[in-house]
Amino acid sequence: MNGGQSLGEFERIATYFAPLAGPEALGLSDDCALMRPRPGFEIVLTTDTMVGGVHFFHDDPADLIARKLIRVNLSDLAAMGAIPRGYLLASSWRRDTTDAWIAAFAEGLRQDQAAFSVALFGGDTTSTDGPVTLTLTAIGEVEQGKALRRSTARPGDSLWVTGCIGDAGLGLRLRKGDALHASDRDRAYLLERHRLPTPRIEIGRALIGRASAAIDVSDGLLADIGHICETSGLGARIEAAAIPLSDPARRLVQAREAEIAALASAGDDYEICFSLPPSATPSDIPATRIGVLTDGTGVALIDPTGREVAVKHRGFRHF
Amino acid sequence: MNGGQSLGEFERIATYFAPLAGPEALGLSDDCALMRPRPGFEIVLTTDTMVGGVHFFHDDPADLIARKLIRVNLSDLAAMGAIPRGYLLASSWRRDTTDAWIAAFAEGLRQDQAAFSVALFGGDTTSTDGPVTLTLTAIGEVEQGKALRRSTARPGDSLWVTGCIGDAGLGLRLRKGDALHASDRDRAYLLERHRLPTPRIEIGRALIGRASAAIDVSDGLLADIGHICETSGLGARIEAAAIPLSDPARRLVQAREAEIAALASAGDDYEICFSLPPSATPSDIPATRIGVLTDGTGVALIDPTGREVAVKHRGFRHF
Repeated sequence: MNGGQSLGEFERIATYFAPLAGPEALGLSDDCALMRPRPGFEIVLTTDTMVGGVHFFHDDPADLIARKLIRVNLSDLAAMGAIPRGYLLASSWRRDTTDAWIAAFAEGLRQDQAAFSVALFGGDTTSTDGPVTLTLTAIGEVEQGKALRRSTARPGDSLWVTGCIGDAGLGLRLRKGDALHASDRDRAYLLERHRLPTPRIEIGRALIGRASAAIDVSDGLLADIGHICETSGLGARIEAAAIPLSDPARRLVQAREAEIAALASAGDDYEICFSLPPSATPSDIPATRIGVLTDGTGVALIDPTGREVAVKHRGFRHF
Repeated sequence: MNGGQSLGEFERIATYFAPLAGPEALGLSDDCALMRPRPGFEIVLTTDTMVGGVHFFHDDPADLIARKLIRVNLSDLAAMGAIPRGYLLASSWRRDTTDAWIAAFAEGLRQDQAAFSVALFGGDTTSTDGPVTLTLTAIGEVEQGKALRRSTARPGDSLWVTGCIGDAGLGLRLRKGDALHASDRDRAYLLERHRLPTPRIEIGRALIGRASAAIDVSDGLLADIGHICETSGLGARIEAAAIPLSDPARRLVQAREAEIAALASAGDDYEICFSLPPSATPSDIPATRIGVLTDGTGVALIDPTGREVAVKHRGFRHF
């Protein structure tokens, strides 16, 4: 079934993936990887899939696809306060996926392995007649019993979010060709924020023992706050004007509440939303206070006059 | 994007997958799973993907697809002597994948979770325009430093294999409609061996501290012995007549060496092939001695007269 010009499965693994392997991978020559958490730590596991045509465009650069795949998984580890250690990669390539594409993909993995101190632990390579499908399982470790959770917030806790919200959603709209009046510089910034999120690993670590709950913002800020509320049995009041927007985003939406609601419903921010006890202030953590958790249910977005802003779609759904 | 009749992503997770979750899954409501290996053990990790049209037929029963997905991964854990603990599941469903299909798939998971004492730790659900694509990451544990490896065999060690070889390959040929002259009963046996392999977990456990090397037979017996040879820097001599065949397989191939070579090159057996020091006999382990490891390189299949049997394709390859 070899296409003639391209390397076979074992040669691709030896050429592109073996150089990425950590000691846990046992040279990628055994059936499994072996890993020991450091004493007093437990293992943290998460998995996320990216499907061509669904989570990335078929003509996106392969190195950026690889880096986003690592980063969306590390963002899940960050939200629980974990230290990333490594990952398993299951790749379904098309028969016409070229060695050059895979080489660029592996180069993206290499860059972000260095950036985030993780290594390849193992994986699987298969072929598909459908779109390229990439599943990464990230493995980290956290102090036993100390992982940040969603379900542990209390009424009266303040709600905070790192970074800026909505950039990735605007970047996706630009990538799809939506006619947005943005300067070249703003376009470049927003596209980059869509293509290459930044997992907030250090912030997650700093929140251990301090945040009463945390989640990474992947479905959309309001939807993800909804997850904290549902699992904690609470409601939330979010001040629309407090939601942090980047300058390029602010120039595009001009602070209209309906558009802020749309940004707070777009996914792929990969910031961390967390709650703190009422008296606490995270002065050492770059984050913005956006609201408060309340008794009751539901996430209300409030305008500066105290009225609730209507929200059309609260987050990304696959079905 | 909801198709109207089918459940949404979150409802599917709540209905079909939440009942499968172990305590490590934190109710499937957090970003990650948490797991502690028992004291003195380390973590064992493996991942395998099954793609519709490549690893299963689109009209295979969904429960059997689920059970095979679990079993091929547990077979990798078995080959290293690990105790299975749980798994993460990344599913890419088609938009026309029905709730009934997913319900049957989840029922298959439930059955094999009970059979092998594992639980769902977490996962991801995405949509695809291509074939249903399923990636399972299995997590186990093994005594620190005791995992069975491929690279640790020595010249003169004997080679053994559990169970019977080639049944799954013949079952696949039957499934594809090849005209093989088999009785209804033999057909049923061979098809079942193809559809539902048995991971040799207890045997893997029993080999700890005894086998000098081990591998699971997934690419094909000769190819997998080749992996032991390459990583251990050895060659192997395999006696064709010693390769254990089931009665249904023996009735089909009538012990012709060329056909035995074909069976020893077919994949999907999911038996364990292992080596033992020259003087050792695994009297308590159901396995058959098939050959010996030698100085040198290459895997030679030998007929009863001492001549080498020609082998056409040594194992399954994806590309």
